Amino acid sequence: MLIKAGFDIEFETTTRVPLTALLSIHPSRNRDLLTPHRISVSPDIAIYDYLDAFGNLATRLTLPEGGARLRCEFLIEDSGRPDLAAPDVPVTPIEELPETALPFLLASRYCETEKLIPTAWQMFGGIRSARGRVEAIVDWVHRRIQFGYHHARCTRTAWEGYNEQVGVCRDFAHLAVTLCRAVNIPARYCTGYLGDIGVPPVDAPMDFSAWFEVFVDGGWYTYDARHNEPRIGRIVMARGRDATDVAITTAFGPAVLKKFEVTTDEVASEPDAVRQAA
Amino acid sequence: MLIKAGFDIEFETTTRVPLTALLSIHPSRNRDLLTPHRISVSPDIAIYDYLDAFGNLATRLTLPEGGARLRCEFLIEDSGRPDLAAPDVPVTPIEELPETALPFLLASRYCETEKLIPTAWQMFGGIRSARGRVEAIVDWVHRRIQFGYHHARCTRTAWEGYNEQVGVCRDFAHLAVTLCRAVNIPARYCTGYLGDIGVPPVDAPMDFSAWFEVFVDGGWYTYDARHNEPRIGRIVMARGRDATDVAITTAFGPAVLKKFEVTTDEVASEPDAVRQAA
Amino acid sequence: MLIKAGFDIEFETTTRVPLTALLSIHPSRNRDLLTPHRISVSPDIAIYDYLDAFGNLATRLTLPEGGARLRCEFLIEDSGRPDLAAPDVPVTPIEELPETALPFLLASRYCETEKLIPTAWQMFGGIRSARGRVEAIVDWVHRRIQFGYHHARCTRTAWEGYNEQVGVCRDFAHLAVTLCRAVNIPARYCTGYLGDIGVPPVDAPMDFSAWFEVFVDGGWYTYDARHNEPRIGRIVMARGRDATDVAITTAFGPAVLKKFEVTTDEVASEPDAVRQAA
Amino acid sequence: MLIKAGFDIEFETTTRVPLTALLSIHPSRNRDLLTPHRISVSPDIAIYDYLDAFGNLATRLTLPEGGARLRCEFLIEDSGRPDLAAPDVPVTPIEELPETALPFLLASRYCETEKLIPTAWQMFGGIRSARGRVEAIVDWVHRRIQFGYHHARCTRTAWEGYNEQVGVCRDFAHLAVTLCRAVNIPARYCTGYLGDIGVPPVDAPMDFSAWFEVFVDGGWYTYDARHNEPRIGRIVMARGRDATDVAITTAFGPAVLKKFEVTTDEVASEPDAVRQAA
Repeated sequence: MLIKAGFDIEFETTTRVPLTALLSIHPSRNRDLLTPHRISVSPDIAIYDYLDAFGNLATRLTLPEGGARLRCEFLIEDSGRPDLAAPDVPVTPIEELPETALPFLLASRYCETEKLIPTAWQMFGGIRSARGRVEAIVDWVHRRIQFGYHHARCTRTAWEGYNEQVGVCRDFAHLAVTLCRAVNIPARYCTGYLGDIGVPPVDAPMDFSAWFEVFVDGGWYTYDARHNEPRIGRIVMARGRDATDVAITTAFGPAVLKKFEVTTDEVASEPDAVRQAA
Repeated sequence: MLIKAGFDIEFETTTRVPLTALLSIHPSRNRDLLTPHRISVSPDIAIYDYLDAFGNLATRLTLPEGGARLRCEFLIEDSGRPDLAAPDVPVTPIEELPETALPFLLASRYCETEKLIPTAWQMFGGIRSARGRVEAIVDWVHRRIQFGYHHARCTRTAWEGYNEQVGVCRDFAHLAVTLCRAVNIPARYCTGYLGDIGVPPVDAPMDFSAWFEVFVDGGWYTYDARHNEPRIGRIVMARGRDATDVAITTAFGPAVLKKFEVTTDEVASEPDAVRQAA
Repeated sequence: MLIKAGFDIEFETTTRVPLTALLSIHPSRNRDLLTPHRISVSPDIAIYDYLDAFGNLATRLTLPEGGARLRCEFLIEDSGRPDLAAPDVPVTPIEELPETALPFLLASRYCETEKLIPTAWQMFGGIRSARGRVEAIVDWVHRRIQFGYHHARCTRTAWEGYNEQVGVCRDFAHLAVTLCRAVNIPARYCTGYLGDIGVPPVDAPMDFSAWFEVFVDGGWYTYDARHNEPRIGRIVMARGRDATDVAITTAFGPAVLKKFEVTTDEVASEPDAVRQAA
Repeated sequence: MLIKAGFDIEFETTTRVPLTALLSIHPSRNRDLLTPHRISVSPDIAIYDYLDAFGNLATRLTLPEGGARLRCEFLIEDSGRPDLAAPDVPVTPIEELPETALPFLLASRYCETEKLIPTAWQMFGGIRSARGRVEAIVDWVHRRIQFGYHHARCTRTAWEGYNEQVGVCRDFAHLAVTLCRAVNIPARYCTGYLGDIGVPPVDAPMDFSAWFEVFVDGGWYTYDARHNEPRIGRIVMARGRDATDVAITTAFGPAVLKKFEVTTDEVASEPDAVRQAA
C-alpha cells in the first residue's frame, strides 16, 4: 500500500523564536520511503536535524521575526496490515525485560504511575495474559474517557484524566500508558500520522495522532485507546515517555500557529502515481 | 584529598523481588578510584551492571525470598576544591545550546516547568548573568522551602513544594531545577555522596544527597539549594531529569529496608591509609 | 543447561602498565547469570568497567609494578542448543539492511575486503540462499586454512591467511568474515568461551575462542569456520569488526603473561550444584 | 567569516546501485549554518540520513538505473581563525584518557600501528610535550611523503605509504595518524571542505580534503600533514578511524562518477550576501 503524507505548518512571530520539532517520520520507517523526506522552510533559514535521546529525528531552527512556514510531503510504502495484537502469552516478568524497556516502567510528567498502582492491580492484575491485560486496559480507558476536542488541555496528566473522565487522544494514551506501567508492562507514548484509511472518513480537520506501544515477549506492539480497534496505515513519527518527550513543536518564545494542515492518504500504487507524487 | 565512601543496605522480603539500583559512582568518576568499586551481595546471587539512558551505571538483581544485603566500600581521589560557580556570563541563548542539553529544559515527573514559567520569569528573568540568575534561584528556593525530615513525601512535585513550602533535599533540588528550566537554563537532578567534609558535622544519620547541575557556557555546574553554599567532596552517582530517573533503588514488589548506612569520610593520604583501605 | 566458566590470568611487569581488557561476558548474556560476574584483582587496585563503542563490557586498570592477577568464575544458564543456522532465504539486499549492520560490510585492520571481492564473487556470488552462501564460505575456509597453534601470528590478516593457508581460530574467522563482507553479507568477529561440551575433549589447554556472526533476514547467526559444525555452550564475550576491536587484553607497555587459564564446563543443574558454585 | 560551500556530484549506472555517503557537514557544525544544509537529488528518489557509529551524518539512497545527481549548497559561519595548536603540555598518560579516546589508539584498516611502533618510539618517543611530539610527526610525514595526484591508490596503507614515500592527502593523514597512535596519542582521521582561503590559490580542481585530529589534554586538535601549516576555514564532515570509516561515497555495485565538483569560498558577510546565497 502507498501512502502520501505530509504537513503544511505556519508560525507567525514578532521576534526570533528558537524551535525544536518532531515532524519527521521515525528513522525505523526511512527504508519505506519512495521519495525524499525533507522539511522545506520558507524563508530559507538555517534548519537541521538531530537524533534525540529516544532515537527520534528532531529538527532545530530559529523562527525569524515574522515567522516561517514548514512543509513536507512524501510517499511511503506500508504493509497495509492492521496493528498486530500483542501475543497471548504471560506478562514478561520484570527480570526478563531488557534494560532498554525499563525506563518505560517509570513515572513521567503526564503519567503518575504510583498514584494508579492500587487501582490498576485491582482491576487488571489478575489477568495473566499480556494481550488480555493490555486489551482490558485499553477497553477500560476507551470507556472511561469521553472524547471531545473542547476537552483538550495540554497540562492534563493521566491522574487528572482518570478523575475528570474527559480528554483527547493524548489523554487516552497517557492513561493507558500509566495503567500498563502500573501493572509491570513497559509502555511508551507515540505520535504520528493516522488517517482514516480503512475506516469511514471523519468530519474533522486531520491532525497528527497519539497512541502507545507496549513491550510484550521481546517486541513492541501498537495500541490505541482512543479508537480501540486495530488500524491501517499508521506512520510513527516519535516515541517517548509521554507527550513531553515528543511534542510536535516546542517554541521557546511566543509563536502563533497560523496554519496547521496534516494529510495522509492512500494512493494508487501504479508507477504513474509514484511518478506524479515524486 | 582521599575519600573513603560506601554503603551497607539490607532488604527483607517474603518473595522474590526484582530490583534496579543506582548505587555506583558515576562513570565520569571512575578514573579517580584507588580501589575497585564493586557492589558485593549476600547471599551470592546474580547481579550485573548496565548503563542507563542517561549514562549512569545501574545495577540489576532479583532479591531472593528473605532478602539480601548490598555493600560497597571504595577509596577515591578528589580535588578537594569546593563546587565551582557557573561563569558570570550571559545566559546561553537557546539556539546555542547543544542538543544534549535540550531534554533538561523540558518538564518531567516532579518538575512541572510550565506551571512556574510566569513566576520564574517575573522573579528571575531580568537577571542577565547566568551565574546571577542561578544564584538568585538557589537563594530564593533555599529561603522558600523549610527543611525537615518529617516533611519527606516521595510524590511531592516542584509545584507542590513551591506551594507547601516544606521539604527535604530532593524538594529543594526539584524546585530549583524547575525554576532554572522555566527561565531557559538547562538543569539536571543529581544524586551522590556528600558528607560533612569541611563543614560542622550534623547530628543525623548520613544518607545519599540530592543536588542539581546547570548548563552554562558549554559546561555543567553544581548547585545545591538545600545547603546554599559551595561544598567539598561531592561524589556524583547519577544524573537525570528528576528523582524518577535516579532513584537509589527501585523495587518491583514489597521489600522492607532493614538497614541503610552510608559513609563518606576524608582519610589521610599517606600510603598506609591507602593500603589499609584497600 | 548450566555452565561454570571463568579465567585466571596473571601478568608480570617491571613498571606500571595501563591495560584494557574484554574479559567480561557480553551484556546480552547478563540475564542468564546465576552468580555475580565480577573480575577480582589482586593486589586490590582500582579497576572499573565501561561499555566500548560496540556495546561490549570492557575493563580498565593499571597493572602495578610487579604485576597483578585477574580472576573470575561464574555460573550461567544456557539453552544447551547448538548454534542455529541462518535461514535459507535470499541474501538480504543492501538497501534493506539496517544502518547498524552497515559497518560490518566495510574493510577493517585484518579484513581487507576489497582484495578478495573478485575471488569471493566468483566462488560464492552465484549462491542465492544466505544460508547456502555462508555455509559454502565456511566450508571453503575450513578446508583452505590448515590449523596449528605454531602458525599463530598476531599480525596476520585475512589476505595473508588466504595466501599462507595456515592459521589459528582467529585466522579462520578473519578470512570467513572478509569473504562474507565481500559478497554483501554483514559479518562480525566474536570472542568468547567455547569448551568441549558435546564434543570429544581435545588435548590442549583451554583458551578463549574466536568465531563470527553473519546478518541474515533481520538477525545475527553464529558460524565457526575453525570447527565447521554447530556447537553447544558458546558464551559470547565481545563482538567487533575484527580481532583489533576485541582483543582479550591490550597492554600499553611491557607485561609478561605468567598464567593464563580458561575454564568452561557443564555442571549438573541440581540446586546443590548451584549452591556450591555460588 | 562566511563560507559558501557545496558540491555537485553525478553518478552514471546501468543498474540500481545502493549507496551510502558521508557528504553532510559534521553535526557539530550544524549550529553555524545560515541556510539549510539539504542534499538534493535528481531524479527525486528516496534518500535519508542517519547517524553512523562515529556520530557522523550519513546518507543512504539507491541510485536508479541510469544514475543520479546529488547537489548541496550552503552558507556557514566560521571563526576565521587558523587551526589551533595542541597545548604545549606533557602527552596525556594512557590511564587518564577518557574511554571515548581509546579506540583511536588501536590499529585500523589503513593504519597498522603495531608495525610502526619501534620506529615511532625511536623517532618521537623522547619528546615529552604533546604539541612537540605531534608537530615533529607532522613535519616528518610532510617531508617523508612526496605529494602527487598520480600517486593515488585507494588501497595504500600507512605502512605502504611509509615505504613507498609517495601519496595524496589521505596517505599523509594515514601515516601521521599511525605514528601518533604508535606513541600513545589518540588520533582520528577527518574529511571535509578545505578551500584555499588565506593561501595562494592552487591550480587544481577543488576536492574534499583529509586531515586528522589528535587528543591532547582533554580536547581534539586539528593537524594536516599534507599542508603542514595551520589553515583557515576547514569545515569538518566526518571523523573515523581511517578512510574506511569516512569514505565520501560507498557504492555497492558499479557506478561511474561523471561529475565531481566541490566548492568552498569565502563570501562577504553583508546581509545582501546572505540573502543572495539563501
